[in-house]
Amino acid sequence: VDSRPIGVFDSGVGGLTVTREILRQLPNESIFYLGDTARVPYGPRGPEIIRRFALQMVDFLLRRDVKALVIACNSISACAFEAIRAVSPVPVIEVIRPTVGAAVRRTRTRRVGVIGTAATVNSGVYPRHVHAMAGRARVALQSCPLFVPLAEEGLYAHPVTRMLAKEYLDPLRAERIDVLVLGCTHYPLLRRDIAAVMGRRVTLVDSAGPTTRELCAVLEEADMENRGPVRHRFCVTDASPKFLEIAQRILGVNIQGYVRQVTLDTEMLVGEERLVRSA
Amino acid sequence: VDSRPIGVFDSGVGGLTVTREILRQLPNESIFYLGDTARVPYGPRGPEIIRRFALQMVDFLLRRDVKALVIACNSISACAFEAIRAVSPVPVIEVIRPTVGAAVRRTRTRRVGVIGTAATVNSGVYPRHVHAMAGRARVALQSCPLFVPLAEEGLYAHPVTRMLAKEYLDPLRAERIDVLVLGCTHYPLLRRDIAAVMGRRVTLVDSAGPTTRELCAVLEEADMENRGPVRHRFCVTDASPKFLEIAQRILGVNIQGYVRQVTLDTEMLVGEERLVRSA
Repeated sequence: VDSRPIGVFDSGVGGLTVTREILRQLPNESIFYLGDTARVPYGPRGPEIIRRFALQMVDFLLRRDVKALVIACNSISACAFEAIRAVSPVPVIEVIRPTVGAAVRRTRTRRVGVIGTAATVNSGVYPRHVHAMAGRARVALQSCPLFVPLAEEGLYAHPVTRMLAKEYLDPLRAERIDVLVLGCTHYPLLRRDIAAVMGRRVTLVDSAGPTTRELCAVLEEADMENRGPVRHRFCVTDASPKFLEIAQRILGVNIQGYVRQVTLDTEMLVGEERLVRSA
Repeated sequence: VDSRPIGVFDSGVGGLTVTREILRQLPNESIFYLGDTARVPYGPRGPEIIRRFALQMVDFLLRRDVKALVIACNSISACAFEAIRAVSPVPVIEVIRPTVGAAVRRTRTRRVGVIGTAATVNSGVYPRHVHAMAGRARVALQSCPLFVPLAEEGLYAHPVTRMLAKEYLDPLRAERIDVLVLGCTHYPLLRRDIAAVMGRRVTLVDSAGPTTRELCAVLEEADMENRGPVRHRFCVTDASPKFLEIAQRILGVNIQGYVRQVTLDTEMLVGEERLVRSA
């Protein structure tokens, strides 16, 4: 039994799609969410920058005494998982391996498509995991750099989103994949646009379910489950009204009273949170 | 006579459109460019965040002993100009007032349109300046949040950009403006897309020319012009290949040998630059 919260973090709001699933599958666990909304998006940035920003988030969460870290972001999982595991005294769950596991279980044709940010696609982590789990599978990769800004701006089912989705996804259709991994935790927000282009015969797999099941297994094996009362907190580096709006859309509840703005990059007192920069 | 460089800064690459004009109008001046490419875009962020990031850039440039600061970014000019002027011992030139001056000189109908980021539009700074300079002018404002990602992704003259431009700009056409201010230093990259929607009767005014003329006047009045040899430097917080690509497109030269990656948010040694965080 361990009543400490689970630290869930992302470059912005995308990680809330994973959080929703954790709240559903693990209703007795407390969540400490951290979204770096002041520096979103991470996807177009270099791996070195992503690692630095990610380690600042990890430092912040570890100081809050979380019992596990969930990297609810594909770009961070792709570029910083090893670096995070190297510094973390608590279990670290990332999104890519569990999601690939779900994808290779579902493909019949062994033709798997993966869409993600530039950082995720360029890392080569997805093909590596697919080939490790299903040697003869073929992986078709496509980066969709404008999907995150479109999702953050709320352009769901908008003609512009449809047009770009067609441009990004037509090459994957040509590869005749039967499973498409939504390799970015923002993409479930555009699920309908993506499904409209891919058609019914392609199964869409996102990170929320597989990652949460992995988290369940880790907590159970280590006997770290919580049974007591829960307390959720949401920290963001830019607490804009847009964050609350998208959070409401994803989680289905208004979390305004639970949101606090924090800084990761300097010693600053913002609201009630004080972060002492690590040496 | 003052041989120190001019500090020019922006959230990313947009400020290079101003830099190009400074290089053209002031060929005897050295430029120290700083682009916060690791945290771009600033436009969707809150004013408090923009001020904090901007002051970190100012701190960095002042430690490099620049003789003047050019805020080559509308979002920073709109949200942080007063804060920057309060800490700067050297002249600070921002983009909004000079650009509005050019716009009100060119309008005949006194119907001026302004497009910009959410931060710039929400600040209300443009209407304030327009009304101060041309009391009876009407201002039609429109934020175009996806123009910066589209420009950074290089989607010039792309059908998606045209479609979004039409959606953003049709309300301004309905206002029968005769001058449109490109109130973001990224927007000149999309000038053709914007012109195609607005038509020939609408004059597009961007910040590069007016801001550089303001800079000329300030240097001349203070007798701070350089006459000696020049040396340009370009610092960015994420030196990705994409930065070099867009820089080449804007400046017409390859600046690879002049680019250095620096950090603004922690004490870190990156390349040859060491930034000591201010107290």
